[in-house]
Amino acid sequence: MNKPEVQTCYSPALYDLYHDPEAIVVIVDVLRATSAICTAIHHGVKMMVPVAGIEEAKAYKSRGFLVACERDAIKQDGFDFGNSPLSFITPEIQGKTIAISTTNGTQAIEAAKKAATIVIGSFLNLSALSNWLIHQNKKVVILCAGWKNRYNMEDTLFAGALSKNLIESGAFYTHCDASISAAHLYQLGGNDLFGFLENSSHRKRLQNLHLEDDIRFCLQLDYTAVIPVFKGEGLIDMQPEVHGISWGRNN
Amino acid sequence: MNKPEVQTCYSPALYDLYHDPEAIVVIVDVLRATSAICTAIHHGVKMMVPVAGIEEAKAYKSRGFLVACERDAIKQDGFDFGNSPLSFITPEIQGKTIAISTTNGTQAIEAAKKAATIVIGSFLNLSALSNWLIHQNKKVVILCAGWKNRYNMEDTLFAGALSKNLIESGAFYTHCDASISAAHLYQLGGNDLFGFLENSSHRKRLQNLHLEDDIRFCLQLDYTAVIPVFKGEGLIDMQPEVHGISWGRNN
Repeated sequence: MNKPEVQTCYSPALYDLYHDPEAIVVIVDVLRATSAICTAIHHGVKMMVPVAGIEEAKAYKSRGFLVACERDAIKQDGFDFGNSPLSFITPEIQGKTIAISTTNGTQAIEAAKKAATIVIGSFLNLSALSNWLIHQNKKVVILCAGWKNRYNMEDTLFAGALSKNLIESGAFYTHCDASISAAHLYQLGGNDLFGFLENSSHRKRLQNLHLEDDIRFCLQLDYTAVIPVFKGEGLIDMQPEVHGISWGRNN
Repeated sequence: MNKPEVQTCYSPALYDLYHDPEAIVVIVDVLRATSAICTAIHHGVKMMVPVAGIEEAKAYKSRGFLVACERDAIKQDGFDFGNSPLSFITPEIQGKTIAISTTNGTQAIEAAKKAATIVIGSFLNLSALSNWLIHQNKKVVILCAGWKNRYNMEDTLFAGALSKNLIESGAFYTHCDASISAAHLYQLGGNDLFGFLENSSHRKRLQNLHLEDDIRFCLQLDYTAVIPVFKGEGLIDMQPEVHGISWGRNN
């Protein structure tokens, strides 16, 4: 069999078990880091620099960068953004580099840094990402950020949607129980993601913080065609020429 | 809310995130360690002593114990049993203490050793275990052995069946996405576990070794009412008086 495999890893703490230096790693943190990154880049951010710790985020702030910093679903004091994707729909960010540190998403990126290629996935760029992966002929590992290294449902639903697209294209196979289970779950819940997540742990967490608009936004399919890819020190749009984005010269 | 929670942990490597000194931990390795332990105790084994390493298994052997030792689904040379539950349906084991070392199951028990109470779950004792847990009024953590710390489908299906029983009894709640997802999966596949596992990684592994009879045996519901519990240095039947088992005096 010459097809590559798609696998899913449910926790950054398990990433080493799935690591393959040749694979493309798709980082997913649907609520909300990777949705926010896709949105920000779609709206003209030149580069998102993921930083793991709050101290590192402060250092970027003191050097004059815009900085997004969220912990436990709450925007941290002294920073410009949290991880609400809606907050990145603003002309202020056009052409800018923004550092971002979040509870789970940026930790997942950190865990996968030794991978050859890291791309960012969310329901917002599902089709664009699926189509691109289908043409790479490389093994794919979907790394779910989860919640503090625990399994979560929304990232699994995305892993299921992506696994399903890749398998159904005929370009991939899987023997990975996590991908197969995730695809079953998406089959069950994909028609009404918002309703299906009703009882999930993180949706409850965000509900309590009155972030329903954020949740609905993050569960949209194909809001954008950008594919954020890790290059150098940050995440940039893989094909800016395709999306007709023009950046300012500085920062 | 005064009900206890049921949670599911998909990998022994993540157990520390779920550890609660007050909780009852249910170890599950459906194919085949925990099914084998339930079967052996049902057929009169007095105690199963889980040992993590092969060297330790050899030490028990040299001390005259019966020893079960499996790695990568294969019975290891020089031992009395692998982890086929069918091999424990024999009068030879009556009243004996058997040491057992397996690829995943005994490692999971090792990971959870600091828990207050460790019990063994499999489809073979699902109802008996569910009923007992419902009356304990204690938090339950279902620890899936998985495959070499990776998620697997058959243990998740069992976690789903047990979570569903506990929640539907009204005695438990859950905010655990892993338990909720597992229950969804069991809802999908519970009516035909054998068919549903058709594409799973471990079923393929066992199929290649012609172990279909073992798989069908392990996927039976309620073959036994024994609940193996960790006491002292091994697993014994929690309520031998209920099951009318009489043991020999020695070993």
